[in-house]
Amino acid sequence: MRVGKKWYRSVWFSDNKICFIDQTKLPFGFEIREAKNYKEVVSAIKSMKIRGASAIGAAGAYGIAQAFAHGDQNYVKRAKLALEKSRPTARDLTCATNAVFSRAKNDPKNAVREAEKFVNNTVENCKKIGEYGKRLIRKRKKNGRGAVKVLTHCNAGWLASVDWGTSLSPIYMANKDGKNVFVYVSETRPRMQGAKLTAWELSNAGIKHEIICDSASAYFMSDVDLVIVGSDRIARNGDIANKIGTLEKAIVAKEYGVPFYVASSTNSFDAKCRTGRDIPIEQRDESEVLYVDGKRVANPKSSAENPAFDVTPAEFITAIITEKGIVKPKDIKKVCQYE
Amino acid sequence: MRVGKKWYRSVWFSDNKICFIDQTKLPFGFEIREAKNYKEVVSAIKSMKIRGASAIGAAGAYGIAQAFAHGDQNYVKRAKLALEKSRPTARDLTCATNAVFSRAKNDPKNAVREAEKFVNNTVENCKKIGEYGKRLIRKRKKNGRGAVKVLTHCNAGWLASVDWGTSLSPIYMANKDGKNVFVYVSETRPRMQGAKLTAWELSNAGIKHEIICDSASAYFMSDVDLVIVGSDRIARNGDIANKIGTLEKAIVAKEYGVPFYVASSTNSFDAKCRTGRDIPIEQRDESEVLYVDGKRVANPKSSAENPAFDVTPAEFITAIITEKGIVKPKDIKKVCQYE
Repeated sequence: MRVGKKWYRSVWFSDNKICFIDQTKLPFGFEIREAKNYKEVVSAIKSMKIRGASAIGAAGAYGIAQAFAHGDQNYVKRAKLALEKSRPTARDLTCATNAVFSRAKNDPKNAVREAEKFVNNTVENCKKIGEYGKRLIRKRKKNGRGAVKVLTHCNAGWLASVDWGTSLSPIYMANKDGKNVFVYVSETRPRMQGAKLTAWELSNAGIKHEIICDSASAYFMSDVDLVIVGSDRIARNGDIANKIGTLEKAIVAKEYGVPFYVASSTNSFDAKCRTGRDIPIEQRDESEVLYVDGKRVANPKSSAENPAFDVTPAEFITAIITEKGIVKPKDIKKVCQYE
Repeated sequence: MRVGKKWYRSVWFSDNKICFIDQTKLPFGFEIREAKNYKEVVSAIKSMKIRGASAIGAAGAYGIAQAFAHGDQNYVKRAKLALEKSRPTARDLTCATNAVFSRAKNDPKNAVREAEKFVNNTVENCKKIGEYGKRLIRKRKKNGRGAVKVLTHCNAGWLASVDWGTSLSPIYMANKDGKNVFVYVSETRPRMQGAKLTAWELSNAGIKHEIICDSASAYFMSDVDLVIVGSDRIARNGDIANKIGTLEKAIVAKEYGVPFYVASSTNSFDAKCRTGRDIPIEQRDESEVLYVDGKRVANPKSSAENPAFDVTPAEFITAIITEKGIVKPKDIKKVCQYE
């Protein structure tokens, strides 16, 4: 995506280093960082300097390629395990490490090329998601006027996905086609990826938007034409895991008759998960809830629960927008390769 | 409520001054402030130093009494109008100013006594709400074990209600009876009344609780036995206005079959509102969303929408807990005096 005069990916590979835009610095600073080995990649993922299902997938792919340059196959296996454990919910990460490892293990010199192929494919997938998804950017009510109003949660834009994004890709494509689009950006506590990252991306692209508190989505839902969110893992039955708060929005959208779309590359599909109940949900540190930007906001003697994701059952999902087309949740397994 | 060794109300009258616990300082400081005239009361309400439907009602009642001591009836009328306009959604405020004004206008010397009567009645109402409501603090599933788990939103505790509270009063009463109660406290962006005030109240009373992000309520709902929230205004058909986010919780609770209770004194009833659509919704400054404790958290070039309340339709409300008993929303007008 263009920032200033230059086109950036959120994660890329250069001189055997993994370069990335530090997402914890945005929107107040645009800083490029490097990870010189898999331990630094793991640390960047855990601290969410690199975040977003496809972006951590890309970091995982490059991390394996880097590991092949640094050690023998046992070293690479250790790196692989550490990378996969860095965040437990997003499926893309394991998909990426598996792909690069299996393709390069007999030909380590090709590891970087395999990683690049994987990441370029991710970007291609995101573009296709945008091309398919932009057709859904339309008024809910016939003869509806003004901008098409999309509600999104968290950040599944180009920062989260190397380029283009998943949930934001259809919006970028529709905007490129000259469509009048407006986005309600729910701020996404505790880490504010909506208010910080999605709002920054949309500003940067010149797309109209307003930030709202997470809890205001029901207030605004009657004004929304469609909801689009991303996904960190998709189960065989079409249940999906995504950022905490996604489930609430899905339930509210159904109540208001608003179409609820999940935009995701099929790399998020996990054939081992029969339903959403099989998806591991990361529990993050309570300090993310109790503090904002280092300052305590909550009662000092109280503690917090901080699940990072929730599971939205297939019944609340109108369709899943993938690089292979738009499918009903129950049909997701048909477009994914598995077993 | 007892704080340390002393019993406090959140608002009281002394030496012709309105004394109050500054709710913007909690939970980090416990500071008492004074308002010497109605303009200072208006300012304290607007800045939310005094907040919560019944507490601003009490401030309004005392504000009228104070005005009678400071000027003629025209002065009092100006004070009344300014007080009523200080926050538009909560009905208790106008209920309070009307009550004290009409009872004292022909006998201004009695104004303070009338205000005290009104406020004592508020406290009595809250106690009764607790007595009625505590019967509802029970496990949702037969033979359910462990603590009864209540989810609440925002703060409708004693701080918001002079003493006891509305939504928290049943919890305090059940706790006093030795019942095992646990509270999920949703943090309540943008001003964090849950994380700051409700959590502080519950800590102070020794009641188990965990803070959660507003958007996590669907994640936890299957573990919740009942939801109790307060109300700022009740329409004739049983629709209620309460803190932004209440509607989302009501919709989610219904989806999960969790009883959703509104605890409110009948002072919040507004016979002029046929339905929730007639309730004015206060739009507060976007800075509350874009900044946290004075520090910008959102993208600098983005703006925000900040409705302070939403309307929950009667169909989502299991019952309203009032000082006159527990009633179905459609029956609320039967227990309220109007017209």
